Amino acid sequence: MVYNGLSMNDIALTQTVQRGGCAAKLAAHELRDILSRVRFPAPHDALLVDGRLFDDAAIYKVTDEIALVQTLDFFTPIVDTPKIFGAIAATNALSDVYAMGGRPQTAMAILAAPLATLDKSIIVDVLQGASDTIGRAGATFVGGHSIDDDTLKFGLSVTGFVHPEKIWSNAGARVGDVLILTKPLGTGTCTAALKRREATEQDIADAIESMMLLNNVCDLLSQEQVEAVHAATDVTGFGLSGHAQQLAQASGVSLSIEVSKLPMFTNALTYINAGFLTKAHVSNASYTKAACFDTAIDQSMRSLIHDPQTSGGLLLSVSPHMADDIVQTLRPRYAAACVIGEVTELGRHSVSYEKL
Amino acid sequence: MVYNGLSMNDIALTQTVQRGGCAAKLAAHELRDILSRVRFPAPHDALLVDGRLFDDAAIYKVTDEIALVQTLDFFTPIVDTPKIFGAIAATNALSDVYAMGGRPQTAMAILAAPLATLDKSIIVDVLQGASDTIGRAGATFVGGHSIDDDTLKFGLSVTGFVHPEKIWSNAGARVGDVLILTKPLGTGTCTAALKRREATEQDIADAIESMMLLNNVCDLLSQEQVEAVHAATDVTGFGLSGHAQQLAQASGVSLSIEVSKLPMFTNALTYINAGFLTKAHVSNASYTKAACFDTAIDQSMRSLIHDPQTSGGLLLSVSPHMADDIVQTLRPRYAAACVIGEVTELGRHSVSYEKL
Repeated sequence: MVYNGLSMNDIALTQTVQRGGCAAKLAAHELRDILSRVRFPAPHDALLVDGRLFDDAAIYKVTDEIALVQTLDFFTPIVDTPKIFGAIAATNALSDVYAMGGRPQTAMAILAAPLATLDKSIIVDVLQGASDTIGRAGATFVGGHSIDDDTLKFGLSVTGFVHPEKIWSNAGARVGDVLILTKPLGTGTCTAALKRREATEQDIADAIESMMLLNNVCDLLSQEQVEAVHAATDVTGFGLSGHAQQLAQASGVSLSIEVSKLPMFTNALTYINAGFLTKAHVSNASYTKAACFDTAIDQSMRSLIHDPQTSGGLLLSVSPHMADDIVQTLRPRYAAACVIGEVTELGRHSVSYEKL
Repeated sequence: MVYNGLSMNDIALTQTVQRGGCAAKLAAHELRDILSRVRFPAPHDALLVDGRLFDDAAIYKVTDEIALVQTLDFFTPIVDTPKIFGAIAATNALSDVYAMGGRPQTAMAILAAPLATLDKSIIVDVLQGASDTIGRAGATFVGGHSIDDDTLKFGLSVTGFVHPEKIWSNAGARVGDVLILTKPLGTGTCTAALKRREATEQDIADAIESMMLLNNVCDLLSQEQVEAVHAATDVTGFGLSGHAQQLAQASGVSLSIEVSKLPMFTNALTYINAGFLTKAHVSNASYTKAACFDTAIDQSMRSLIHDPQTSGGLLLSVSPHMADDIVQTLRPRYAAACVIGEVTELGRHSVSYEKL
């Protein structure tokens, strides 16, 4: 039951677009350049976490006990089955709320669709996949906006709640912490293979299942385990390399990642070796060129580290004494969850990748 | 100083897209059909107003004193100057919060752009126009999402606060109320003329200025005046006809509108008579075919009534004894604000348009 009962069909949504999923987002350096040239007014005091670098969630205090976690994400089809696309887009958008330690409350749809050529039942299925996912997250679908457009795009604007003093930011990693990754890597290359018709949805079933899996880690952990999480981020379009670098820099530490421990989807390296890559593989490598790679790490593994994830896992920085306990708690739901490295004192490189 | 100091330039954004602004949204009947086929779970008790028919704002209760007003809107360029486009898109998105009696708090950007062909300075200008507008609304720009796309699209996801017992819905109109419209009609035909190069931005300066004007009526009205507003909606893509019909149906009343009183932009009827119309003129007429038009009302005026508005004004249903007082209070900022009709008992037609 890989697809939770969703049936495959003949519609090949990925053939309607040039680039799919989080690989279609603007490169980090392009965004940074653009945003540096906009004169923003001083943010409000209630803005506890600024999400202005676009793909992060923002946190805005409402009362002493409630803050809003706000995030927005949308993209072109990365799978061919409409209902699965809707489910993945929703899971991906909800993820940012979980990555901040929040719980999703409301979701609004962002829909662009070529009505003249696209059967309406496709849109119904996309919305159904999203609605079912939002329901599983315990949130409410409250509205949205639709636009007639040349290519299908779908996503959500999500608002969650978090206690202002219990935020998981990417700035809290401490020297000595252990790094846990909750999902395998490789959605970028797997969906690139699908788009090129070199793989079927069945071939990348493990990646599809993973992209539909909610990052609601907070619902599994005990209070003690939650408090042992010092920093968190979700691994999406900038790849493990990009998001690890952001976490290291925000926390003022360095990260050491053991490449042999990285979980990956069954066919990920096969597709990478076949050259099924995206523009984001290149831009993520460029964005993280200050990282240090053990010379024994081959090019295919480096590409996996730069692979843009859609609805990727959480990267957690946790107290070393609780790490194994947390991994064991996560395993029934996140079978690939594992320790992938540790947090070290700030060194010459934000992130070092060791072969071991 | 029509454009508040924004300079015109040679970039013709409207030439990059097929349809612009709120005229590009899915027709109401298409949306309704699609949404009727999605099986949504029961909404949460906290959802005070359901925005599921996409272009309305939703209201979600947080505490006894605070509810979130949430809305999302984005579209392709309807003017050629990037900063003005950003300002209009932001004003339009913020409007739904004001239409519910709320005050905007946070805004996230929705950006799709053809990075390969579009100069980055255009994106900077679009964001600057939006940021300045968000600042004027007293809200905070908290983040967003960007995507590489064939055509430029921009908008905002906005969250505002409203007291749960002081919501302006479109369901509160009472028999005997007087209808006030705060801005002239005609942005659809004016921007269609611009797109066809039959008008310059100078020719439609009054429409552009109006689209950049925030609908923060609540900041001008006294407490007594605010309480005299029984229902409100903003007039956007479905035109005066569509939004008036929605207000009438939601309130269980009929509306009588005096066509001779309708405010319009200087060249609006000229452009309508020249045939500068959009797909939405047709779909809005179809959506509101149950309306009754005095036979003396000519076709051009009917087209104006169906004209899709981008960042249109508010349609307010107010106590008759406060109507003139409210109009006088609004006039310094909304020069065209006027009484356009009244609320009557539910009759055969939701909305009747009288020539008088």
